[in-house]
Amino acid sequence: MSEGSDIIYAVVLAGGQGTRLWPRSRQARPKQFADIAGHGRTMLQETVDRLQPLIPQDRVIVVTGERYAPLVREQLPQLPAENVLVEPSGRNTAPAIGLALIHLARRDPEAVMAILPADHLIADAEGFRRTLQTAAGVAAQGYLVTLGIEPDSPHTGYGYIQRADPLPTADGAAAYVVQRFLEKPDRHTALRFLREGGYYWNGGIFVCQLATMRAEIERQLPALDAVLQEIAAALGTEQEAEVLARAWPQAPRVSIDYGVMEHAPRVAVVPMDVGWNDVGDWGALHQVLPADSNGNIVVSGDHLAVGSRDTVVYGAGDRLIVTIGVENLIVVDTGDVLLICPHDRAQDVKAVVEQLQRQRREEYL
Amino acid sequence: MSEGSDIIYAVVLAGGQGTRLWPRSRQARPKQFADIAGHGRTMLQETVDRLQPLIPQDRVIVVTGERYAPLVREQLPQLPAENVLVEPSGRNTAPAIGLALIHLARRDPEAVMAILPADHLIADAEGFRRTLQTAAGVAAQGYLVTLGIEPDSPHTGYGYIQRADPLPTADGAAAYVVQRFLEKPDRHTALRFLREGGYYWNGGIFVCQLATMRAEIERQLPALDAVLQEIAAALGTEQEAEVLARAWPQAPRVSIDYGVMEHAPRVAVVPMDVGWNDVGDWGALHQVLPADSNGNIVVSGDHLAVGSRDTVVYGAGDRLIVTIGVENLIVVDTGDVLLICPHDRAQDVKAVVEQLQRQRREEYL
Repeated sequence: MSEGSDIIYAVVLAGGQGTRLWPRSRQARPKQFADIAGHGRTMLQETVDRLQPLIPQDRVIVVTGERYAPLVREQLPQLPAENVLVEPSGRNTAPAIGLALIHLARRDPEAVMAILPADHLIADAEGFRRTLQTAAGVAAQGYLVTLGIEPDSPHTGYGYIQRADPLPTADGAAAYVVQRFLEKPDRHTALRFLREGGYYWNGGIFVCQLATMRAEIERQLPALDAVLQEIAAALGTEQEAEVLARAWPQAPRVSIDYGVMEHAPRVAVVPMDVGWNDVGDWGALHQVLPADSNGNIVVSGDHLAVGSRDTVVYGAGDRLIVTIGVENLIVVDTGDVLLICPHDRAQDVKAVVEQLQRQRREEYL
Repeated sequence: MSEGSDIIYAVVLAGGQGTRLWPRSRQARPKQFADIAGHGRTMLQETVDRLQPLIPQDRVIVVTGERYAPLVREQLPQLPAENVLVEPSGRNTAPAIGLALIHLARRDPEAVMAILPADHLIADAEGFRRTLQTAAGVAAQGYLVTLGIEPDSPHTGYGYIQRADPLPTADGAAAYVVQRFLEKPDRHTALRFLREGGYYWNGGIFVCQLATMRAEIERQLPALDAVLQEIAAALGTEQEAEVLARAWPQAPRVSIDYGVMEHAPRVAVVPMDVGWNDVGDWGALHQVLPADSNGNIVVSGDHLAVGSRDTVVYGAGDRLIVTIGVENLIVVDTGDVLLICPHDRAQDVKAVVEQLQRQRREEYL
């Protein structure tokens, strides 16, 4: 068990290209670069905002693709330029995290890193920072720590984490050894998890010492480790860009969950109940945002509702959106696209995007 | 019984300001000046088009308000300038028809006139022209003739006409003496009308000799008759505009139905079954326009439907409108306004307009 520093770095993964929030999430501007919640800040900006003051911006690393690097710099103007790491191509989360890891290891090899998706909403930022601190303490004991989201429904869209024995924490907050990671369950199984207790949603937020993660990559993902070694050796040299471009395509496409977490020997879970939501589809927004007495939510735009209930309106510009006698509807207007769909069909947005891809209607993707 | 000429003139009433097709029908451009059916022609243009070749444009008179006269001239560029009659203010249909009548009487006192709203759809133009010819023949016998629409449902939104004895016609088509006009019935009564037969919807289309109508106005509406006499005496003089402006406000606000037709001694009905629809609200469009195999109708714009049924889309410009899993919905996009409502709530558009009026949101009226 190594005793790491108290310094936490954040590794924000901002290279994703989700289609489930189409037409707001587009190839040219995926959802992390959009103000999905109508808060006046993009999801990426909120991801960084909520770390303050625990993790100041000079300790925030953002990993993204070439196409999105300008957006990151534009949306986070105070982020030091060297803190934006550009993947030559998207190869899933393990290589992205590995790239951040070798950069951080040059700065502070004893550090703890918190790995954060850039496209989640968290209502209670203070509670989230407390959880990160608890997790950092557990990580200092040599654990790979996952933050486990307390489930409030038998959701079948997330992986689950089953806890085992409790672990001591400096602040007395709960932490457990992880028994196992579980794939997305069917409804029956998810109901059982909820009834039995001791299961958490895996939100893809991890906290660990650099050395712990590096050792597991070396052990479980030797091909990635070789790539990272090659890139690490060139960091700060004139060959850095060239080596990165040459070595990167050899990195295996694998997620940190599957590639590392699920088979690591010392994994812990720190539960959190901080109003987390990954806004997996438009229907999720309804759980997150405050509604009026008729259940209507106006994220943006100008809405006139006559006898309408439980409707989410996502307007663009100054168009007046009038709904009469509708229920459980989602209306998303981006100016060039108008989407109308019931909450419980929100997952079919994916099918629309696929159809537009087949039709090569690039302007809408 | 006078023997009139065979010449039919059309009097097209284009001064109305309906709100039931809002947001396409706006104060600045009511529905008769819009291409509601997606035919590429406005309703006014189609009203004149379908009279050809029976009633050429030099025999078409359009009565409208000052605000809309430029639209009439723009949309009917071949209409002789003197055929656009401008009411100083809207005073319902009897004064509008009276104004047309005194103008026509100077041209051809023996003529028959067909009085036509500018905002109806008729699928079978040829059948409609045949009906007009039949009606003109009956009118030549001194009848005020109404065209009666064969009802295909127990509609409670129209007045009904009950027929009595048949009348002879030159072409052998059906015509009847009118027993009486009936107010908009309740559903029970409308069902009885449909079951019994011999009842027609009153679509507000009338055919008569100028002299017959003039005599009835003189008898039933002496106040209007006095106004018309004063204006008629000034027609073609330098005082014409001044006299019109002065006399017009004295004209009683009364409809031709209530003021003349319902109490005239010799009224006939010529039945027609020509695909008539007054597009009374957005729901009516669904009865008129051809749908695809899922019942979806795209009047205009670009629609991508995933699992959507019986939905009417009225797009504007090049916005892509995507509906997923919706049914019986009407989507009207005018660029500045987006309306979403189920077919059976289409009549509530009126309530929206009233609300916008109270809020003085003139830009949307």
